[in-house]
Amino acid sequence: MFDISIPPVDRNAARAAHERICRLTKPVGSLGRIEELAEWLAAIHGGFPPSPYERRAIVVGAGDHGITAENVSAYPAEVTPQMVGAFLGGFAAINAFARVARAEVFVANFGVASALPAHPRLFDVAVGAGTRNFAHEAAMEPAEVEAALQAGVGVFERVRDEFDPQIVALGDMGIGNTTSAAAMICALAQAAPEDVVGRGTGVDDDGLRRKLGAVSSAVARLNGAPWPVVASAVGGYEIVGLAGVLLAAARAGVPILLDGFIVAASALLARAIAPTSIEYCIAAHRSRETGHAVALRALGLVPLLDLDLRLGEASGAALAFPLCEAAARMIAEMKTFDEAGVSEAQQTVEA
Amino acid sequence: MFDISIPPVDRNAARAAHERICRLTKPVGSLGRIEELAEWLAAIHGGFPPSPYERRAIVVGAGDHGITAENVSAYPAEVTPQMVGAFLGGFAAINAFARVARAEVFVANFGVASALPAHPRLFDVAVGAGTRNFAHEAAMEPAEVEAALQAGVGVFERVRDEFDPQIVALGDMGIGNTTSAAAMICALAQAAPEDVVGRGTGVDDDGLRRKLGAVSSAVARLNGAPWPVVASAVGGYEIVGLAGVLLAAARAGVPILLDGFIVAASALLARAIAPTSIEYCIAAHRSRETGHAVALRALGLVPLLDLDLRLGEASGAALAFPLCEAAARMIAEMKTFDEAGVSEAQQTVEA
Repeated sequence: MFDISIPPVDRNAARAAHERICRLTKPVGSLGRIEELAEWLAAIHGGFPPSPYERRAIVVGAGDHGITAENVSAYPAEVTPQMVGAFLGGFAAINAFARVARAEVFVANFGVASALPAHPRLFDVAVGAGTRNFAHEAAMEPAEVEAALQAGVGVFERVRDEFDPQIVALGDMGIGNTTSAAAMICALAQAAPEDVVGRGTGVDDDGLRRKLGAVSSAVARLNGAPWPVVASAVGGYEIVGLAGVLLAAARAGVPILLDGFIVAASALLARAIAPTSIEYCIAAHRSRETGHAVALRALGLVPLLDLDLRLGEASGAALAFPLCEAAARMIAEMKTFDEAGVSEAQQTVEA
Repeated sequence: MFDISIPPVDRNAARAAHERICRLTKPVGSLGRIEELAEWLAAIHGGFPPSPYERRAIVVGAGDHGITAENVSAYPAEVTPQMVGAFLGGFAAINAFARVARAEVFVANFGVASALPAHPRLFDVAVGAGTRNFAHEAAMEPAEVEAALQAGVGVFERVRDEFDPQIVALGDMGIGNTTSAAAMICALAQAAPEDVVGRGTGVDDDGLRRKLGAVSSAVARLNGAPWPVVASAVGGYEIVGLAGVLLAAARAGVPILLDGFIVAASALLARAIAPTSIEYCIAAHRSRETGHAVALRALGLVPLLDLDLRLGEASGAALAFPLCEAAARMIAEMKTFDEAGVSEAQQTVEA
């Protein structure tokens, strides 16, 4: 069985960051969540975060889903490889947002149904040609769960060898994957399908009913099942693969910006495998997809942004890179009251 | 009386942006507030926004406040010039955040009580050496209101001549200015002092009571007064000056990122002078300062970020530059379904 050892983050480093932040030329606590973010990042790095985070990687995991045969998505499955082509061609949303963040986009094929042309930024580690239809059979073999996790670890190691990222954002592409993710979230977070299943890319009312039916049936069969059973029954190759990327990044001490609904399913799986992995994760945003808030609560994470996004691709995660840079620069570049020769407060109430 | 003519934004340009955004390779509406932001920016620019917004300016207006004699702030007034020194020295929060956004920081002295050393990034247009104590007399002469507005217009024109910004963020520095801003917001937005007065930089309970008392007394005298009377009675030189900067930027068709509580008071004043000016404004964030939400509602603006900030200096506004860049790049760099050869949705429900 797949196993990985991840040390806890360094709470002393967070405390040291907190102490410096309290001495900087601003009222104590006045930079709110940026201060909190700086302390998290310090805990992950085991010291003040690198400033200004020069090497930022985005890893988008792609895969296809047999459940699309149930007509649960607004888009045809052929869109998965087409969008991978868009990511590699540089003209998708994630490419535009990556340029804002000066981040590099890598794509991992964990299980797209069709062959993909080779590309230097594409890691072709496909475990299968799309999962099976979990309405009728297990989405993947238990050995494929293990293989997808190992593939994810391998993808992170290759990104690390090529690029040595100081921070990484995870995202997804896979027509049908909100159905798989919803089932995983329900099973791993003990949540009700009604609270988790949403419209994904925009399925209509009939499709939404089919989607809820498929998820409800699968989740009913999984009551209390351990993570390998859940992943095999309803998982997606990219969802499981991204959990592997997350676990490897956490093991390497690299902060991980989580994107939306799909990556939340990956994070719940990663936490089931290695609970400390979540200490390395930052919830970049809250998606408009029903159920993302449920998953974030289960993960104990409070999102930084709330912009009504529901695209995936790491688009929301990419928008949080500048906030991490701001947190790092705050510690590195601001002076303390003493250093700056600025008079301190005459009162000490924290607003 | 100060007057300025500002044309409405271009709603046809917003519609054209909307039409293109709906054709880009993503489910319709799936980039949520980034799409909305792109349409606002298009309306302001009268066409697709410049991508990637290479020239970004931050204007921090500074001034001192006679009301500090009432002991309404946690910090001594000498901090105002000290922090101006920090901005110009490059080691304050706004400098760190400006580097994230690759923005230039300009400081305008609209009325600091002490002399400030010359600096190439400092526009010294002081109208007075701090306002008078509005608990006992009018904060400034009516002619000073006019002078501060004209000074603000002049500051924007100088920034424009030197830098030609494509987008501008406004921020403030002035010990005591949340007391002045609270009174202005109450008077201009017909809000109750109890809903608007907060702790500012962190005043203690006794200070908060004094602050509420000063604001309540002043606002009671201003019931229904026109903006020149309000600004003279309780205004701050930097608050009025920043309204002038805002009005000039709007007249020039430059999008304006509003920072927090103080700049909201400036925006309410600008709107009273020229209602169309608000069409050029984007609320970058919601401050934790009590009453900012009240002011934003009165302005009809929905903030992009909510990060529990309460610092001022344009720190929150600066964090929204990357979102504007993302919106601009989305339109400029993403392909449409047709252009990219990606299959479209088989259903048309917008989630």
